[in-house]
Amino acid sequence: MGAPPPARRMALHGRDVISIRDLSRDEIEEILAAGRRMIPYAEGAKVTHPLEDKIVAMAFFEPSTRTRLSFESAVQRLGGRCITIADMSATSMRKGESLSDTIRMLSSYADAIVLRHPNEGSARLAARVSERPILNAGDGAGQHPTQTLLDLATMHEAFGTLSGLKVVLLGDLKYGRTVHSLAYALALFGAELVLTAPPSLALPEELQAPLEHLGARVTREADVSRAVADADVLYVTRIQKERFPDETEYRKVAGSYRIDANVLAHAKSRLIVMHPLPRAGEIAPEVDATPHAAYFRQAFLAVPVRMALLAAVLGEPRRGGR
Amino acid sequence: MGAPPPARRMALHGRDVISIRDLSRDEIEEILAAGRRMIPYAEGAKVTHPLEDKIVAMAFFEPSTRTRLSFESAVQRLGGRCITIADMSATSMRKGESLSDTIRMLSSYADAIVLRHPNEGSARLAARVSERPILNAGDGAGQHPTQTLLDLATMHEAFGTLSGLKVVLLGDLKYGRTVHSLAYALALFGAELVLTAPPSLALPEELQAPLEHLGARVTREADVSRAVADADVLYVTRIQKERFPDETEYRKVAGSYRIDANVLAHAKSRLIVMHPLPRAGEIAPEVDATPHAAYFRQAFLAVPVRMALLAAVLGEPRRGGR
Amino acid sequence: MGAPPPARRMALHGRDVISIRDLSRDEIEEILAAGRRMIPYAEGAKVTHPLEDKIVAMAFFEPSTRTRLSFESAVQRLGGRCITIADMSATSMRKGESLSDTIRMLSSYADAIVLRHPNEGSARLAARVSERPILNAGDGAGQHPTQTLLDLATMHEAFGTLSGLKVVLLGDLKYGRTVHSLAYALALFGAELVLTAPPSLALPEELQAPLEHLGARVTREADVSRAVADADVLYVTRIQKERFPDETEYRKVAGSYRIDANVLAHAKSRLIVMHPLPRAGEIAPEVDATPHAAYFRQAFLAVPVRMALLAAVLGEPRRGGR
Repeated sequence: MGAPPPARRMALHGRDVISIRDLSRDEIEEILAAGRRMIPYAEGAKVTHPLEDKIVAMAFFEPSTRTRLSFESAVQRLGGRCITIADMSATSMRKGESLSDTIRMLSSYADAIVLRHPNEGSARLAARVSERPILNAGDGAGQHPTQTLLDLATMHEAFGTLSGLKVVLLGDLKYGRTVHSLAYALALFGAELVLTAPPSLALPEELQAPLEHLGARVTREADVSRAVADADVLYVTRIQKERFPDETEYRKVAGSYRIDANVLAHAKSRLIVMHPLPRAGEIAPEVDATPHAAYFRQAFLAVPVRMALLAAVLGEPRRGGR
Repeated sequence: MGAPPPARRMALHGRDVISIRDLSRDEIEEILAAGRRMIPYAEGAKVTHPLEDKIVAMAFFEPSTRTRLSFESAVQRLGGRCITIADMSATSMRKGESLSDTIRMLSSYADAIVLRHPNEGSARLAARVSERPILNAGDGAGQHPTQTLLDLATMHEAFGTLSGLKVVLLGDLKYGRTVHSLAYALALFGAELVLTAPPSLALPEELQAPLEHLGARVTREADVSRAVADADVLYVTRIQKERFPDETEYRKVAGSYRIDANVLAHAKSRLIVMHPLPRAGEIAPEVDATPHAAYFRQAFLAVPVRMALLAAVLGEPRRGGR
Repeated sequence: MGAPPPARRMALHGRDVISIRDLSRDEIEEILAAGRRMIPYAEGAKVTHPLEDKIVAMAFFEPSTRTRLSFESAVQRLGGRCITIADMSATSMRKGESLSDTIRMLSSYADAIVLRHPNEGSARLAARVSERPILNAGDGAGQHPTQTLLDLATMHEAFGTLSGLKVVLLGDLKYGRTVHSLAYALALFGAELVLTAPPSLALPEELQAPLEHLGARVTREADVSRAVADADVLYVTRIQKERFPDETEYRKVAGSYRIDANVLAHAKSRLIVMHPLPRAGEIAPEVDATPHAAYFRQAFLAVPVRMALLAAVLGEPRRGGR
């Protein structure tokens, strides 16, 4: 492990970032370290322009305000500029253009493309036809690698390490792509995983085996309070209505895992509660004021982490310092 | 009054601007003076970058193209950058996120937030949770302070003063928030007010008393031509369908106060006609070519006035001159 | 002809660009030459900022992602900034504002306006009320001059000239505005035209006569393979459902002119296939990998050509070089 040698710093330059699995453990650590250094720049306290005169296309085939705005903020904090499709579903797709043609168009207009798409596999397909790097910002039930990176950054900031952390993954472990990528990455870094989900939303067996193959200890615990008791991290996911095949099943589950002061009463004092946001009621507002609440910090860390990734993929170091 | 002492120049730095009532008479005069100095910069004839490397979020929970674009122009004329939600109603709110959570997110991504929201009180609520300044760009039947500032700027430019002006407020004086804030500010500056409205849209009694308390002379005059006869300013408001509880009432009133050459035949030659725009027929196009028409100038002044406010709240003077 | 004298370089400064017919042959050649010089800047390999501190409004009264994003890319590659209405139909028009008032507003907020509108003649009307240059980005069945310019640029790049080229115009020659402007410009430059369209979508007689008046040879050929046999350029148009008065007629025609390897089997090796994109099936994907496919290059050339036009209309040469 250790600090990555300087010679490896530009290893991501010009590359697509489709899945967290495309990144080595070294590369992830490199991005996390670069993300930490970006914090004062993300806050606006310092200024750096490695993306000056670069254009990044935001291609959102489904709206995701949070992801789009944090990427746009990241690009602009780095001195770059954006061209944006906030919701492609409303526009050109009416005319029936293929994803390939749209991506080819965007790669003529921009130096990189941030892609959000409702269909799994779209980002990989886009990378095949694009002449410019594709940054996957979520493709349906598929991957969302920058979410995983900022989740890891949040835990690392709180504990100074990822290795040995006991992390409870709570809620929708079946449809939630966020949690699949995160579980993989945590296993890679030697965290221990506790899976807490209703039976209908349990982590699929075929996803659990590879985690254990990476050497992770993985247990299942249906009771939230018990799961939380000696955990370092409680990662709460949104129960996403749109991923459910059936409304009745959705209603049965929604609200069954609400985190409030009661649930946290017996937690360790240093436990952090995380959530990819937006939340719809999974975490009671009373938790916000407790030292456990890490989800707003997590939201902020989206900016420096995405800045670090953009700078690695697109940045020109000679324009960096200021 | 007199010119504000230089030492007060940064009194607005870092502050929220929720209501015109949050600003003292001195502060309003300071912004108007700064707005006058901003005119050549708003026209693009001169360049200043006090917002360089600043990001301003445009959070429009309902669309308002005019307000959004004039703010975006103002930010960019000052060297700043924007991240924009043009119509939040179409996006994240589907997922049921609270206003508080959305504002917390935006205050992680930007240095200030321009907020437009359909519900009264939203801007005040936003200011409570935001770590960054909130600029209220209209919250339902509530406040819209920058509209009031640019209205005052338009009158001040035409007459060199606000004190002693006779201002006719015409149209919807019940639901129009624009006119409530404006009436307050005009009273503060010693203008005389003439209220011309159909009975169903009269200014609520509880809003008239405070005007008189400020020392303003306030009269009511149902006949437009008579009201206009010796006025300096005719301020026409849009009859906003969406504010009416009932369509029948709307239809009865709409069009009953249309301004044309006839109505202005006996006006003073220096009378100016104002309108917050967009207009839907309240002012006949034949008025556009007369010297009375001030509404396009008023629309332009949105940019320098908003620039002045943004520079006061966010600007870094050391980056100002160029 | 020959190279335009330097003194003519700024002839477009401050002008509206409504129709390709507003430009002389000299001016078109000037823009094409400037467009060629812009290519490395459009690719991001070189940097130039003639639009620094300029704001360009994108006023799209109907969505057109491709046109909007290529203009936004062009503005930003030149150092300028944008304020954008991506789809006006969804916003202010609800409040019933006239086009004139909207344009007057935008000319207060920006240094130039790129206008897309569903109604023919809108751009000319806008130019009458705007204090800032209007660049027509398509007005219904009317004009779309920058599309014509980039089409010419694509042919010129492939053949080094426009004069004497044999160009097949295929598909909807009745409703397709792209093809009307292009036919005019090709005739102006001495190209030969072959019209290939189903009878219901033939080029209107009143449009053909002026082409011949310009000295162009114009023939009609119903069979695509025969038309293509000795052509230099095959220009394929989209059959636009929304232009048809009647759905039955649309269905009858759609798909009747699909270009695939078979159609191109007997073409000259240097034949280029063009399409304004998006395509909906008029060109088979198998064509993409052949040397005939010029439509992706054509899409890219939108950026340098629009850059050249924007720089000519708005640019300040003293800020150019870098």
